[in-house]
Formats: sequence, structure tokens, C-alpha cells
Amino acid sequence: MVVVYTEANGQLERSDTRKEDIFRAASSLFSIRGYQATSVRDIARELDLQGGSLYSHVASKEDMLWEIVSRAADAFLTTVQPIAASREPAPARLTNMIAAHIEIVVARLSQATVFFQDWRHLGDDRRNEIIRRRDAYEALYRQVIADGIAAGDLRNIDPKLAAIALLSALNGLPGWYRSDGPWSNSDLASGYADLLLAGLLRGPSGDEKAT
Amino acid sequence: MVVVYTEANGQLERSDTRKEDIFRAASSLFSIRGYQATSVRDIARELDLQGGSLYSHVASKEDMLWEIVSRAADAFLTTVQPIAASREPAPARLTNMIAAHIEIVVARLSQATVFFQDWRHLGDDRRNEIIRRRDAYEALYRQVIADGIAAGDLRNIDPKLAAIALLSALNGLPGWYRSDGPWSNSDLASGYADLLLAGLLRGPSGDEKAT
Repeated sequence: MVVVYTEANGQLERSDTRKEDIFRAASSLFSIRGYQATSVRDIARELDLQGGSLYSHVASKEDMLWEIVSRAADAFLTTVQPIAASREPAPARLTNMIAAHIEIVVARLSQATVFFQDWRHLGDDRRNEIIRRRDAYEALYRQVIADGIAAGDLRNIDPKLAAIALLSALNGLPGWYRSDGPWSNSDLASGYADLLLAGLLRGPSGDEKAT
Repeated sequence: MVVVYTEANGQLERSDTRKEDIFRAASSLFSIRGYQATSVRDIARELDLQGGSLYSHVASKEDMLWEIVSRAADAFLTTVQPIAASREPAPARLTNMIAAHIEIVVARLSQATVFFQDWRHLGDDRRNEIIRRRDAYEALYRQVIADGIAAGDLRNIDPKLAAIALLSALNGLPGWYRSDGPWSNSDLASGYADLLLAGLLRGPSGDEKAT
């Protein structure tokens, strides 16, 4: 375990770093074994800590899950929100939203995996809060798709169904992405964005696409 | 619990029906609570059985998971395989493959949920067998997409990436589908198939689509 210790802010920084170590170890173990199959003792062992010492930094296993899931949800929302609200045409906004989403998954693969795999194990209040943020995230896509239909850039499709199909395809990403896979991250982001967006675009002639 | 008991094949049919009841109760509880959070006692209680009596029908909780996951994997494979092997053009085959997949999810929502949510909890050999069937299923889509590209019906895309995006969107379905949702099953199947396929098709002019 790496402990960054500076004279300037001494004990505080050390405690923050320890918390980050716990966060990373929990993310990693939950993502591999699943939340329910991972014990606090497993996480402590990973960090060469006593279980009791770990509890001086976090109150419960569920608190660790919440920290992981909540940070991931925030990363998606706060990154994509300004892109959705920008003045670009809907297809460009969607391309950028999809690319930003993929970048977050790739950069935080363990947390993203835990988010999609284990958020249901949160207590009721926290689970409802995640559902609220997930709905807000879906609404961003729905709104941009509706904008694009209104502007004539996208086909006349059901924006809710289109948003769900798009997000389902994105949410499957942590399940199959491997950093040593056949695509570079930018090839993956552009190829995936292209595929997902192409189903929404009007054809070059402006007609609805034949299916 | 409903027990179908006929004079003709008496005890055998009764035992088969009991096994099906256990299968359905396990599917339902695993899908709602998750495999790890459900005990054999929970399943027995749901059926007004003693735990010991349940063990006369199934050897372990993992055997129940295997039965659910294995049947679901087989349902997808055996239904979609003949469609993929048919002589229709690739876009028609893909439309039918997607519709068949969605029909299975809708008809067996609990089993499909358990399949996607809990297959990782199988023991090594069984998990590897499911990975094998999942790869075979992905290969069906990859092959039909490659056929469609070769025939000039589909855009010149990476068949593997396209198959993964398509299957990710399909696999997300159990996570959000509700039988009381805003779409009829056939609207859902056709709308979803249309969206997913449209990203793969060549535009009406035969050009690659602009993105």
C-alpha cells in the first residue's frame, strides 16, 4: 500500500489516502467476486489491515458499496450533463455523450462493473437514490434524441425506447471490455458510437430508413 | 402448489411436476433477491416444503442455478440457430433473430434475469460451459452480420463489435422490461429490432452512412 505523507497536511492526507486505498481494494474485490461474496475481512487482508482498523475509516461494507456506486453514477451524470446541454446538433451531442460514457467505463472499469452488477444490494434509500440518478441520466439521452427528431436529424422513433436500447448497449460494456482486447480505446469509442448512432440517423436522402 | 396427478403415470408425473415447481420458485426468488441472497430454505418455504424434502428432488442450490441458466442458454441457442442458418438475406435473418431473442426474454423473464445476473456464481466447469454456449450464440450473430456485409446488405463494419453491441442491447432487456410497460410485446420486438438493425444497414443509396 502506498501512503502519501506530506509534512504540510500530515495526518489528514494520510487518512484520505488510506480511504482511497480501501475504495480501490473494495472496487477491485467486489468487481471480481461480487459484493455479497466479499467480506470486510477480505478487503482488510488485501490491504494488510486488521478488520478493526478498517472500520476506523468506513462504517460498513454497504458504505463502501455506496461510495463506489455513488461516485460512478456521479461521474456519468456530471460528465454527460454539460454535453447534453450544449448547443451542438443532436447527432454530435449523442456521439460525444457515447464517447464520454465509454471513456468513463474504460478509465474506471472496476467501479463501473460494481455499479452495474451490485447496485441492487444497496439499502432501500440509497437504491432509490441511484434509481433517481439513473433515470436522470436516461432523461439526458431521451431529451437529446427528442431534440434530434424535432430538428429532423433523427428518424421518427420512440425516444424512450431508443434511449433504453442505446444505454443497454453501453451498460453491457463493462461485461465484455478487456484492456487487452482487439480495439484501442478510441477505435472502440468511435466504432461503438457510430454503430449506436447510425440506427437513429435519417438516411442521406432524408427518408425514413427501410428496415 | 399445483400437483398434476394422473392415474396413468402416477408417481413419475407427480415428481416431475414437483421439480418444475422447484424450478419456478427458484427462478422467481433468485431473480428478485439474487442467487447468493436466496437460501434453499427460502425456496422450500415458498413451496411449503421441508428443506429435507426439497433435497430429495435437487442435490444443491447450485444445481438449481445450473438448471435455470442452462435451460435459458439452450432456449436462446436452439431457437436462434435455425434462423441464423436459414437462406434468407442477412437483414431478414437478423430481424427474426432479434425478435426471437426478445420473445424468449419476455416469455421467461425470471429465468432470463437469473441467467444474466447470476451465471457467474456457477462452479468453474459449468461456468465455462455457459461461456462456451454464449460464445456460440455470439458467433451466430457475427456470422450473419459478416454474411450481410459480404452480400452488400450491411455496412462495412467490424462484425465482432457489431455483434457485441447488438447483444449488449438485447441482454439489457431483462433489466428494464416490465410486462405492464408502455409497449406491447410485438411493438417492443419490432421497435427494438428496427433500432438495432438500422445501425447496420446500408443507406438507401447504397453509400456508407454518414455519421
